[in-house]
Amino acid sequence: MITASVCTIGDEILIGQIVDTNSSMIARALGSIGVRVTRMVSIGDSRQEILGTLSKELEINDIVITTGGLGPTKDDITKGVLAELFGCEGYLEHPGQMEMVYSILHSRGLEVLDVNKAQALVPKGCDVIVNRRGTAPIMVFRNGNSTLYAMPGVPFETEAALGDVLADIAEHQSLTAISHRHLMTYGLAESALAKKIASWEDALPPDMHLAYLPSPLAGVKLRLSIYGGDAAQNERRFDKAVEGLKALIGEYIYAYGEESLEEVLGAVLRAKGKTVSAAESCTGGEIAHLITTVPGSSDYFLGSVTSYAISVKENVLGVKPETIRDNGVVSAEVASEMALGVLNLTGSDYAVATTGLAGPGGGDGVNPDGTVWVAVASKTAVLTRKFQYKNDRKHNIERFAASALHFLLTFVNSDATA
Amino acid sequence: MITASVCTIGDEILIGQIVDTNSSMIARALGSIGVRVTRMVSIGDSRQEILGTLSKELEINDIVITTGGLGPTKDDITKGVLAELFGCEGYLEHPGQMEMVYSILHSRGLEVLDVNKAQALVPKGCDVIVNRRGTAPIMVFRNGNSTLYAMPGVPFETEAALGDVLADIAEHQSLTAISHRHLMTYGLAESALAKKIASWEDALPPDMHLAYLPSPLAGVKLRLSIYGGDAAQNERRFDKAVEGLKALIGEYIYAYGEESLEEVLGAVLRAKGKTVSAAESCTGGEIAHLITTVPGSSDYFLGSVTSYAISVKENVLGVKPETIRDNGVVSAEVASEMALGVLNLTGSDYAVATTGLAGPGGGDGVNPDGTVWVAVASKTAVLTRKFQYKNDRKHNIERFAASALHFLLTFVNSDATA
Repeated sequence: MITASVCTIGDEILIGQIVDTNSSMIARALGSIGVRVTRMVSIGDSRQEILGTLSKELEINDIVITTGGLGPTKDDITKGVLAELFGCEGYLEHPGQMEMVYSILHSRGLEVLDVNKAQALVPKGCDVIVNRRGTAPIMVFRNGNSTLYAMPGVPFETEAALGDVLADIAEHQSLTAISHRHLMTYGLAESALAKKIASWEDALPPDMHLAYLPSPLAGVKLRLSIYGGDAAQNERRFDKAVEGLKALIGEYIYAYGEESLEEVLGAVLRAKGKTVSAAESCTGGEIAHLITTVPGSSDYFLGSVTSYAISVKENVLGVKPETIRDNGVVSAEVASEMALGVLNLTGSDYAVATTGLAGPGGGDGVNPDGTVWVAVASKTAVLTRKFQYKNDRKHNIERFAASALHFLLTFVNSDATA
Repeated sequence: MITASVCTIGDEILIGQIVDTNSSMIARALGSIGVRVTRMVSIGDSRQEILGTLSKELEINDIVITTGGLGPTKDDITKGVLAELFGCEGYLEHPGQMEMVYSILHSRGLEVLDVNKAQALVPKGCDVIVNRRGTAPIMVFRNGNSTLYAMPGVPFETEAALGDVLADIAEHQSLTAISHRHLMTYGLAESALAKKIASWEDALPPDMHLAYLPSPLAGVKLRLSIYGGDAAQNERRFDKAVEGLKALIGEYIYAYGEESLEEVLGAVLRAKGKTVSAAESCTGGEIAHLITTVPGSSDYFLGSVTSYAISVKENVLGVKPETIRDNGVVSAEVASEMALGVLNLTGSDYAVATTGLAGPGGGDGVNPDGTVWVAVASKTAVLTRKFQYKNDRKHNIERFAASALHFLLTFVNSDATA
């Protein structure tokens, strides 16, 4: 299998000033054509570090991809160090990139300075992929059994050039394809999930690999992978494995692909031609925010009320003062009245409501911090459920919102009237 | 200077499934106590890779911090490999972590399984920092001149344990003290800001270092640093430097410390004894979400309406149909009526409203995707302002919400009636 190392270069990465998103973007792209990334390394703008790291990575990998250090300022030294590393004698002007330098600077109303023109100079002997979004070309150094691609560090430019880099790799390497299958689960912690499917996991064919990928907002994602083999046959083998999994944990699986709760909810609502609204207390707008991150959500999301104050719960949502007095604000009864209140207010088909304590410092013995009551409602039914978490404020809010979305999704899915 | 290497372990990083945010978080924390990160490396859950990489990083650094591979499932092998690397003979149960395992699982209503109990076992000879947010303890291996800290990979857990790790480093290493001063600015892009303060920056004393730290939700943070020196004297030198900056860009500075827009807004409202509400269209709940991430925000945030559908704008917020007909939904007039509507509905002292297009695909020549109208209102005044961005949906929503919060903060600050 062809292997690669991704090396990001820049002092700003090492001091934590920026989060390196290039490495994961490049790794996903390489994975899609069956190249296995063995290491990612981030180093500073230092000649010695660059020389030492890249020569080692070239030794043990078929491909090395670098990003960064190609700008026109003094602290950017990658190009010179690469010329030294590969023993290139002098520089040549690349006409295609020079054209791009002029075109980019002119479109921004800027004069083309010598430092800008120098961007189109490349070490003799390297191949060039033109950068259409920036002035620094992508340089390809072929060196016996290994190849180095030097890419710009600005993610917007890296992204645009990746397709050309993949095409160059596909042309020069004999690649093994890789197949993946994803399943999204919610409601079981990683360890409980692992226990439930242990016998199934042990019986997986040796060439089929399983990974657990937990996240607070989406539950635990499961990923099956097969390196090599026939793609169509791999899909059939995945289908069979998934059948076994469905029998064990079917009720916890909310998607048979890589989708978020809010995307699946949106697709279900769209398919049913139904609308939804939300009434949020402790989640403070996070449910509405998640639902509306999905493009086109205005087709099924009518709106929401964040009722932080009791007066807003009563006056806007119509929660009865005696319901709050008799049950407390954090209660199934208040959650129900909030859900029905926003259903009436917006005229939506479904509604979800939350009332709870994200913390810190509002909880008591009955309802400690991390408690939330969620209600889901339609025109004919209301269901409530209590969830209990034990995180800090930020993560409690995330868990509350995810639990509410999942409860709502289950409710909408099981609604036979729709 | 003490040096460190940050090593993140996990196949999910190498295939690009997750973006590694731990490395930058750890690098920022280490930088704050004067430890210099020389390299970041990401490797897979492979015994050979872990052994090879860690022994090399330990050779060339004072400190190595790893994250990941400490979960209860079979693919997590870091603990066993570390025991091998440091020649530990057998495992011991750590009572403090075992207590935490029981407490965490019980609070989630889960049974404590053998795999969970095994989380509290640590290789003989290592020191332990209890993980209060997860079941895997932080293990400290002291090995001659270098020390390895093995931390969990879940960022929520890593974050909580970082303080204890820094304290341990400070106790065992002779660190050069480092002094920082932060200023928060909003409304100028990094390059425009740099141009405005170029002469001031050039005149900084050579031992005072300036860093620009831009983020979509908080504007550009400026950080001044001095390595070594007397702490009290450093503070006086920072005061003097900040005076010069205030004269140049005072109106763009919203905090003289490391605070978010929503924290500063909360503090100002609390000091004035005033309340706020929000009416959100294109921001879809993000403004309410940001305001309510601040603990105690229920003291000044009454609630909000997310009016995605026109019917909700009209029926809940009282926007007049002819206002929408005559001006379009994305207009100063609609934003004003939304702000006044939610002010009346909730009885708050201030309100903020947004109407715009986050994209993709809803824009036109007058209002392209990335356009937002923001209104801020009190009982006696309404102001509106248009902002224009050019990002994808997610980042447009973030920029819209941050612009609205900053506009609201400026409005509240300048309100002489309060």
